[in-house]
Order: sequence, then structure tokens, then C-alpha cells
Amino acid sequence: MTKIVKKQIYFDYAATTPIDSDVLRQMMPYLKENYGNPSSVHSLGQKAVIAIDEAREQIAQFLNCLSEEIIFTGSATEANNLAIKGVIESSKFQVPSSKLHASSFKPHIITSQIEHHAVLEPCCQAEKRGAEVTYLPVDKEGLISVLDVKKAIKPQTILVSIVYANNEIGAIQPIAEIGNIIYKLRNSKSQALNSKQYPIFHTDAVQAVNYLDCDVKKLNIDLLTISGHKIYGPKGIGALFIKKGTPIEPQILGGGQEFNFRSGTENVAGIVGLGAAIKKAQTLKLKNKNLEKLRDKLIDRILASIPGSQLNGSRKKRLPNNINISFKDVEGEAIAINLDYEGIAVSTGSACSSKSLESSHVLLALDSSHERAHGSLRFSLGKNTTEKEIDRILNILPKIIKRLRKISGSSFK
Amino acid sequence: MTKIVKKQIYFDYAATTPIDSDVLRQMMPYLKENYGNPSSVHSLGQKAVIAIDEAREQIAQFLNCLSEEIIFTGSATEANNLAIKGVIESSKFQVPSSKLHASSFKPHIITSQIEHHAVLEPCCQAEKRGAEVTYLPVDKEGLISVLDVKKAIKPQTILVSIVYANNEIGAIQPIAEIGNIIYKLRNSKSQALNSKQYPIFHTDAVQAVNYLDCDVKKLNIDLLTISGHKIYGPKGIGALFIKKGTPIEPQILGGGQEFNFRSGTENVAGIVGLGAAIKKAQTLKLKNKNLEKLRDKLIDRILASIPGSQLNGSRKKRLPNNINISFKDVEGEAIAINLDYEGIAVSTGSACSSKSLESSHVLLALDSSHERAHGSLRFSLGKNTTEKEIDRILNILPKIIKRLRKISGSSFK
Repeated sequence: MTKIVKKQIYFDYAATTPIDSDVLRQMMPYLKENYGNPSSVHSLGQKAVIAIDEAREQIAQFLNCLSEEIIFTGSATEANNLAIKGVIESSKFQVPSSKLHASSFKPHIITSQIEHHAVLEPCCQAEKRGAEVTYLPVDKEGLISVLDVKKAIKPQTILVSIVYANNEIGAIQPIAEIGNIIYKLRNSKSQALNSKQYPIFHTDAVQAVNYLDCDVKKLNIDLLTISGHKIYGPKGIGALFIKKGTPIEPQILGGGQEFNFRSGTENVAGIVGLGAAIKKAQTLKLKNKNLEKLRDKLIDRILASIPGSQLNGSRKKRLPNNINISFKDVEGEAIAINLDYEGIAVSTGSACSSKSLESSHVLLALDSSHERAHGSLRFSLGKNTTEKEIDRILNILPKIIKRLRKISGSSFK
Repeated sequence: MTKIVKKQIYFDYAATTPIDSDVLRQMMPYLKENYGNPSSVHSLGQKAVIAIDEAREQIAQFLNCLSEEIIFTGSATEANNLAIKGVIESSKFQVPSSKLHASSFKPHIITSQIEHHAVLEPCCQAEKRGAEVTYLPVDKEGLISVLDVKKAIKPQTILVSIVYANNEIGAIQPIAEIGNIIYKLRNSKSQALNSKQYPIFHTDAVQAVNYLDCDVKKLNIDLLTISGHKIYGPKGIGALFIKKGTPIEPQILGGGQEFNFRSGTENVAGIVGLGAAIKKAQTLKLKNKNLEKLRDKLIDRILASIPGSQLNGSRKKRLPNNINISFKDVEGEAIAINLDYEGIAVSTGSACSSKSLESSHVLLALDSSHERAHGSLRFSLGKNTTEKEIDRILNILPKIIKRLRKISGSSFK
């Protein structure tokens, strides 16, 4: 008997992407012969400086900003923490580190219920330490209302942090409109604070870079987070765009690297990889239409062929690569394991919270039931996804769900 | 005419090391086909989990601790920040975030004047925010007195952070003795605080790993920092050993990776590289004697052949790879540039502060003059250093210094 080796299919590009071979090729010299420390004055060190400068310039071009406005970090999570904790610490209203010292001034932060944990957790910590945080709700499609943001802003508001596109359901938020509101407000005289600076507008654009316009000037963004490994670059590297003049306290202190915003010897190869990856992301956008076609085919066919299946998140304001569907009377976990057995990698909830087995906070915010959240599956497509792969999953998935429903005694056949 | 290509000589291993080819070979699959996110439940994700577990185990074996006591970070600087800020935030005496809220209780930290900036800067910040910091002096050899540490400890002391071996002058500090003092104190009833926990003992062991015993049990260490790129591993990865039960607040919040101590998608390839590098570091120690011979030859011959040259730091309690010498009437910078022109990479001061052109705070702490500090040069050797390279520098260096002294009008010939 010959063993049949199943072709691996990867439908988890939102969790992480493989490094593009061209990106890796550009990184390799910095993992080999060009190993100098950028802080060293000798030629080998200066080669590293030049490589970092080039990567910074590549990112700046992509975001339409100055290269000195790009700060490299060890991950997008670190960049989000730098944005949130950095703004809080530098705000006029010092956040007391314990409630014992709580003063009568409370800095105010606006965020949403569907942010990534890397935004939610620093906000929760700020709350515990005496700040006020508004977690804006979303509608049934997972969309934040611009009007809600506008209404929530008050004189004490130092920060508005809204994800550009959600990692679980791919819902695209009205970032340009929110940016516009904040920009106008800061330039009016109505704010009690130093209206030139507050509120500061941050967006986590980790999932957006491959697909959406990230021109920070056009969008009126002050702080923007990106990640290497979500855009066919390496893990262990992220960056925060910090608009010149934005008051922000560094979080990792030391040798003064990254214009003093983030100390520590630079991850040269990672930085080169992030620069190369973002340069290539420019061209990825051209393939959006094709990806949308594949996405829509997968959504339409699943909804048509599998009873008791429901799309999570907006149909229209959705990333070209995201499919998130709940199946009644089955656990997403069980489907994922069965698909994995067939060589197909998908995700339940976001990768970042899938360890915890808690219901996805994003799906619950959409007013989904716990059951609907538990029965959810995310397929995220990427630049290597083919129609053949879509067809293969459309062939396998209904059988798996049928089998699992039989076991659970579901009324769906 | 044929162009003579000079063989490059690298004498800056303390700034950064090339990645060992075997280490890089082990990293490569995680930069290529094994690209899964460790938070994903599918096989590709689980492959990454297994790789991380193995690296954690390799480091735990090296340090003689439990694998769950190893927390991966984006750099040693981040690890030092986590140690210092983490302990301060979790201490009973909450550090007020501004002087306005300063309570009568002041947490107390003991460190030294010759720490790396990644330790000094977080301590300075804590001081500004209301903590008390004792910066212990060193003797003329760059050594901290155990008695000074003992005398400085008081009931409010929450943290003692002393570098294992200094990065600029290679001075090896009495870490075992300090660990012993703190251990005894915690187990006596004399401390007013919760004597089971405070003071916590942290050491930055970044420069020590290749050469010194890092058994955290034997040394009674609670927190220990290591770095990938100083031990022939990659840049962008570090780790903090956190002894089980040590009260410490996470600094980067999010998805809960690294046992909740450091969130963010894991730098899988970097982690694998750190594990592989530390495993190899075990065998590096066997070559200490050879390195010491090369070091001593370089020191002895320079001091004998170049008038007005002085060794900085202890002759005996010195890392096997460190040579730091000051030359009268010449700038270290000028020597370094001339050596670089000859294809020889050395450092002035530490790489991490060489950008600033300030006098080295380490040399000034040794009671050196500013002039002596400015005239200093660090040669740091590594596993690839040969006697031929030592001979080459011994041939070139006196000529360069002679030439530079002629220009400066020095009385030394």
C-alpha cells in the first residue's frame, strides 16, 4: 500500500504568513557576513546602519511619512503597548500607579470592544491604575460608529485607539472618518486641553497593510502599528509610526537606539525583512480583486451548502482575505482539528487567543451567542491561495461538519 | 598595479558576535517551511511550540533552572527593563508615577555606577518617579565591594541589580557572594519587609554567559538577563530568567504569551537560535584558557611597546576576551578609525554608548580622568580570534599611535 501524502493547505494567513523568499534573500547577509552592531563606529557597524536606514525609508514611503517617524520594535504587540502606555505616561494627567494616589484628574481613553488583546490589555491596566476607558460597542456587522467616537470624546480624552481592520472577522473600520473628526477637533478651540496634541489617534494596522490604504497623512493618523510576520516578513519585528511632535514616553530604556524611543541592539535582519516586506506589500494590493473573488466563492458556497452556517462580520466592509463563519451544533475546535488531519490549517478565533479556549471577545461584541462564538472558524487567505485550494475545502468541509453533527445529535443533517 | 585586499580582523565580539553557522542552520527551517504561529492549534503551529519548548529547555539546562522560568524577550535591554520595572511595579511600595503623588514610603534599589545603560536608565526613571536608588561606586579596578552592597541594603530595598561582568572593561563582579548575602538576609527575620521575597537579586549576565558559571541556584540569583547576539546567536532575541515566585509585573501586555510575562507572537527562529547558541556556549568555556593567553599577550605587548598606555579594569578579575587600554595624548576614536582603515574592527567605549561621544561612565567610575576615558580602546576577542590576528594588531597599533601623537604634539614618542 502506498501512503498518500496530502498536499498541505494553509488558510491561516491572518495568524502568520510565510516569509517571502525574496524578503528572506535580502535578510540573509545580515544573518551572515554583515553582522556588525549598528552602534559600532567601524565599517561593519556602519553597514548595519545603512541597512536600517534603507528599511526605515521603505516603510516611510509606504506610510507617506518621514523616515525618522518610524520606530522599530520587537513585535506589533510591543508597538501597541508603546503607543498606549507611552501616551498615557506623557499625558498631562499623570496616571497614578495605584488607586491610593488617584488624583481628581482622570485621563480618558477611547477604544473599542473588538480590539486585539495587545490594545485591550494595556487599556485595562490603565483603567486599574486610575484612567477612564470607554470601550465602544460595534454593530452586528462588527463596525464601529463614527458618531459614537465623536460623542465619546471629552476634554480629558488623551487617546483614541481603533483597529484598522479586525483580525478575527476582517471588519474594516472608518479610520479616515475618525481621523478627520479628531483632526478637526484638535484644530478648533473647543477642547479644554492643549488642543494641538490631544486626543492622539492610534490605529493598529497589522491586518490592514496588505490590503488597505495606509497613508497616514490622508488618514490623519498620529500613531500606527505594523507587524513583520503578517505581511510575508519575519516574526520578532514590528514598528510604530509616531508622528513628529506626538508626546510619547519610551517604554524600553537603555542605549538610546531608535531615536531614544526604543533602546536595545537593533534586530538588523528583522528590520531589513520588514522593510523588504512592506515594499512588496505595495504590489499585493493589486491582487485584492482576485482575493475577493476567492473569498466570496468560499463564503457563498459554504453558506449555500452547509445548513446552519452564518457569516460573522460585515459582508461589504471586509478584508479581501477574511472568512469567518459559525456552524450550529459543532465546536470550531473540532472542525479545525479534523481539517488539520486533512492537511488544512485554519483558525478558531484569533491565533492570539486560541490558547485560552475562551469565547472570542470579538464575536461576543457582535452580539453573538456563546454558542455561535464557539462554533466559529476563520479561514484567512493569502497571496499563495489558489482556486483549487478553495475547491478542496468546499469538498471536505461539509463532510466533516456532517460527521461532527451526527456525533453531537444535531437536528441539522 | 594590483589592489591589496586586507584581511578583515574583528576585535569587537563584546559589541556583537557573528551567528555561528550551526546555530543559523538550526534557525533556517523556522525562517522557511516551519512558519506557523505557536498560538495556532494546527500542526504547523504546534511545530513552532515544540521548537520553542526545546529552546527553553536548552537555556534552563544551562542556567540550572526550570524551563518555565525562562521568558523570551526581544533583546537583553528589554529583559533588563522587565526585571527592573517589573519588580518596582509589583513591589508593595507602589512607585508613584509623578512626584506629586509621592507617598512617604520610598522603594529602594541598589545598583552600581558601571551598569549598562539598559539597567541605569530604568533606575534613573524610577528615581525621577519617587524611588530611591543607590549607585554603588567601584574601586580603581572596576570592582564592586561586597561589603558596600551589604551596608546599602535596608528594609525598603526591593531590588539589587549588579552586572555579572562589565561590557567595557570586562571586570567580573562578586555575584556569588552578593547572592549569598541576599539569600541569608531573606531567610533571617531581620528584614522588616516580607523577607521571603525582598530584596530581589538581578544580574545582567549578557557578557558572562560565554565565560562564567551561570548556575542560578549556586549563585542565588532571582533574575538573570541573557542576549542572543553576544553568544553567536541572532540579534533581536534575549531572555530573562525569573525564579518561580518572584513578584514581577509584565511590561508588554496582550495575548498572554510567555506565561503572560511577555505578550506578542514569539520570534520562533530567534528563540531557536538563542537555544542553540547557549547549548554551544557550554563548550566555549573550555577554550577560556586559550583566550586568556591571547588576551594577556595583547595586554602585555601593548603596555611594553607603547609608552603612555594603561590597562583599564582589573587584571585578574577580567573576562578572558576583554582588553581595554587608554593611550595618552590620543583620541580612542581616532585610533579606531585608523584601525578600521586597516580592516581591523575595535570599539571605543561600549558600542551602545559610542554614538553619543560622551566619556564612558564606566571609565569615569574607575576614577579615570576624562582624558583617560577619551583615549581608551576596547579590543574584545572571540572564538575565531587567532594569534596571527593578535600579532597583526601588535604590528600596526604602535605605528598608528605614533603617527597620531605626532599630530597632537605629544611628548610621547
